[in-house]
Amino acid sequence: MTVAELAAKIGADVRGDGTQTVSRCGGLEEADEHTVSFLANRRYVKRLKDTKAAAIVLSPGDADRAGERTLLVASEPYFAFREAVVTLHGFRNQPKTGVSDLAVIHETVTLGRNCCVQPFAVIEAGASLGSNCTIYPHCVIGPNVTIGDDCIVYPGVVIYDDTVIGNRVTIHANSVIGEDGFGYATEKGVHHKIPQIGNVVIEDDVEIGAGCAIDRATLGSTVIGTGTKFSNLIAIGHGTKVGPHNLFVAQVGIAGSSKTGSHVAIGGQAGVTGHITIGDRTQIAAKTGVVQNIPADQQWGGYAAMPLDDMKKVAWEVIHLPGLVEEVAQLQKRIQQLERGRDAGTGQSAQ
Amino acid sequence: MTVAELAAKIGADVRGDGTQTVSRCGGLEEADEHTVSFLANRRYVKRLKDTKAAAIVLSPGDADRAGERTLLVASEPYFAFREAVVTLHGFRNQPKTGVSDLAVIHETVTLGRNCCVQPFAVIEAGASLGSNCTIYPHCVIGPNVTIGDDCIVYPGVVIYDDTVIGNRVTIHANSVIGEDGFGYATEKGVHHKIPQIGNVVIEDDVEIGAGCAIDRATLGSTVIGTGTKFSNLIAIGHGTKVGPHNLFVAQVGIAGSSKTGSHVAIGGQAGVTGHITIGDRTQIAAKTGVVQNIPADQQWGGYAAMPLDDMKKVAWEVIHLPGLVEEVAQLQKRIQQLERGRDAGTGQSAQ
Amino acid sequence: MTVAELAAKIGADVRGDGTQTVSRCGGLEEADEHTVSFLANRRYVKRLKDTKAAAIVLSPGDADRAGERTLLVASEPYFAFREAVVTLHGFRNQPKTGVSDLAVIHETVTLGRNCCVQPFAVIEAGASLGSNCTIYPHCVIGPNVTIGDDCIVYPGVVIYDDTVIGNRVTIHANSVIGEDGFGYATEKGVHHKIPQIGNVVIEDDVEIGAGCAIDRATLGSTVIGTGTKFSNLIAIGHGTKVGPHNLFVAQVGIAGSSKTGSHVAIGGQAGVTGHITIGDRTQIAAKTGVVQNIPADQQWGGYAAMPLDDMKKVAWEVIHLPGLVEEVAQLQKRIQQLERGRDAGTGQSAQ
Repeated sequence: MTVAELAAKIGADVRGDGTQTVSRCGGLEEADEHTVSFLANRRYVKRLKDTKAAAIVLSPGDADRAGERTLLVASEPYFAFREAVVTLHGFRNQPKTGVSDLAVIHETVTLGRNCCVQPFAVIEAGASLGSNCTIYPHCVIGPNVTIGDDCIVYPGVVIYDDTVIGNRVTIHANSVIGEDGFGYATEKGVHHKIPQIGNVVIEDDVEIGAGCAIDRATLGSTVIGTGTKFSNLIAIGHGTKVGPHNLFVAQVGIAGSSKTGSHVAIGGQAGVTGHITIGDRTQIAAKTGVVQNIPADQQWGGYAAMPLDDMKKVAWEVIHLPGLVEEVAQLQKRIQQLERGRDAGTGQSAQ
Repeated sequence: MTVAELAAKIGADVRGDGTQTVSRCGGLEEADEHTVSFLANRRYVKRLKDTKAAAIVLSPGDADRAGERTLLVASEPYFAFREAVVTLHGFRNQPKTGVSDLAVIHETVTLGRNCCVQPFAVIEAGASLGSNCTIYPHCVIGPNVTIGDDCIVYPGVVIYDDTVIGNRVTIHANSVIGEDGFGYATEKGVHHKIPQIGNVVIEDDVEIGAGCAIDRATLGSTVIGTGTKFSNLIAIGHGTKVGPHNLFVAQVGIAGSSKTGSHVAIGGQAGVTGHITIGDRTQIAAKTGVVQNIPADQQWGGYAAMPLDDMKKVAWEVIHLPGLVEEVAQLQKRIQQLERGRDAGTGQSAQ
Repeated sequence: MTVAELAAKIGADVRGDGTQTVSRCGGLEEADEHTVSFLANRRYVKRLKDTKAAAIVLSPGDADRAGERTLLVASEPYFAFREAVVTLHGFRNQPKTGVSDLAVIHETVTLGRNCCVQPFAVIEAGASLGSNCTIYPHCVIGPNVTIGDDCIVYPGVVIYDDTVIGNRVTIHANSVIGEDGFGYATEKGVHHKIPQIGNVVIEDDVEIGAGCAIDRATLGSTVIGTGTKFSNLIAIGHGTKVGPHNLFVAQVGIAGSSKTGSHVAIGGQAGVTGHITIGDRTQIAAKTGVVQNIPADQQWGGYAAMPLDDMKKVAWEVIHLPGLVEEVAQLQKRIQQLERGRDAGTGQSAQ
């Protein structure tokens, strides 16, 4: 494929020579003469003169500073580069369809067309899978679980009973969906387990990273909304409703019964306490501790969380505190001198 | 079962009509006319008039504000509702007893009566299980592990060699018990692994969430005390002794050789450094970083941790810092003016 | 083995009677007359008179305070004790070599000499293992994965396609290596997955704890450097390069494209944001949030991270803030009084 042909596919304009053939995507430094590369950050624009890449995807603004290179100019360069990766590399080849003799599938299970069930997977009574699903080794699909079409469940994933999963959902290795929520009623110092009779619902087009744990609800459902993407080692409490098109970075934890709007983004290691609502499009910085409701279209950070502007102000003040203490000590001395002067003056006038 | 019959079973008093039949528990909003519901928070008392629930479990104080509804009044309403859930739903049906032909069980293993060992479970040499245990698929019970009666080990759990587990212990999917502690002796810049020759002891009635990791001790034992409950993705360091009846929320981490008393509660994402002691009944807020010993009956939070009252005071001050800086600047100006007046006065008197 | 024989092996000097036989290592409290113990902290020196241990490993400085005991004096006592544990206990016995009939190994796989592949392990097409590797049950070694010699992969570990692993690498149970990085290009509110065409490279002598998740790179490689050791539940983002001989405590998270030097140490629950560089030998305290580059040989902590000395100063100031506010209020009153005096004086002089 030539640069010009690729440009047409990814919605970019060629600037320079479009006749070079390209066969792969790669970083600026590791690129060869058949590589399409990407300018991730304007700071790196000087590196463009050293890369061997056949063409570089970038924004119109950056293109003007790029020098004599073959460029693929796109108004949304990150998306255009994504299109280039999809075009030249595609997604991971999934294993061939077919059900392994070494899988254990209960006789009551419904399997759609063209599914692949790999060795040592276990699918329990009453479970139902749509078409074109891939179940990797050592997965357990629990009793009465429903999975839609075109889902990929990587090795070691455990899906507890009654979980409902939509279409085009991907779950990475060793994640656990639908384990019991953390519910105990304490009486006389003993914690009595509350049966967790709810379930988990994962809507369409969700991707869950590796090693996550999503609690089933005590009553009703824990929900992960359409198009939402989780990174790794994320913990979601019982009854929490994660909205559509959210992005959660690794090690985020949301306690039970909280709710996020659509397009919420939460940075790594941030936590949200229980019974909290976070509005649409709100962004939460990494490591934030959210302990109150946050309206839509906010950027919050800190612990306890506050608007990011306030947090930056407070952080600045805190760092400059040592100066303030010194300043107050100086003021104190000057006031003492003023007071001595006044008292001396008073003394004189009393003479 | 009628409301009145349920009331007798769960230790609640009926207020209103007790003849309605009930068959399930559910939230206020999703309830139908055969549902027993629960008032989780006094704020929601207004919702009682809209729910279709047959009866609502609540406290005597809330009952007086509840209007014309059938009520199940209990002094410990959360525990009473728990009893209702147990009565009407029970706990998860465990699979039938029996040992799968597809499990691999070493010939030296001792299995108690009525155990269930599911396909692809592996039980290694010298391990011993009590009666009525359920071992789900893909569990590994390592060499010389001892497990008591009535334990449930969900899929994918890995229990390393020499671990000792009591009775009525539940471990959720993909948790790991007894992996090597994080111990290296560094010599000339190289980290040399210290054999971790201790083990993990989990006492009776413990429940461990999904995806946890509990290190074996270097020497002696890491201990999880009777009746303690862990949520998900919790990390416990080598040699740590978690006391009885503790509650740890998701993503808590305790470093090595620390010790908690009885009935300690630790909020999500909180961390405790090594060689720390936390007293009985002390509560640690979510995201707290504990770096010193804490006595009994405390509530601590913050990073580094301090008493919750101090933490709130400090948080308030920090948020109001920008005002303080401005205030000090104003004082500075006023002192300057006072000083100018004094110096001018001095000047006059010098004339 | 006598104390004197052990001393010769571990590079320690005997002080006292070296003829006692020793057979095990243990803590001071649990020791018996055949136990070698270790003084972990000078604070515990008084406990030496109560221990039954045959001999205690300690530093020359501590030896002088140790009273009439048999001592094993070493300039690096922690390393010497490690040598004693290795000598008397050795490392975990690995299972016998041989490939289980119950493992699924693709016909194209290359296995070195003396490997052990346990039941229900799966090794995919094109994978290659060196000599003396142990693959525990329920591991998945993905397509085209390369593993060197003398590696141990504990149960439930999932290694995605194209991962490259060096020699003498140990990976603990249920860790995941090479899952897709967290990369999406958002267009019109929809997050489009970017194929993650890079891989993970784990160099020689690395140990990875339980339940970790190491993302494959979008392009190029995520790298874990020679001799680096991870504790449990650690998340590493795509394209991150962890340097050689690093130590990461449990629940650390590093976002994508960051880079650490050699001998970096990061405390538990600390996080590093993306595109950050941390210099050689720098130490990051537990729970720190790193959001900027840090040069070599630093000790940093806090959130946002700062040098540990500054952090301690700021923490001290913050805790004493309430006093400062009170002090400023007092100054304000004294200034008011001074101002009243001046104005009264002015008034008089105007008469």
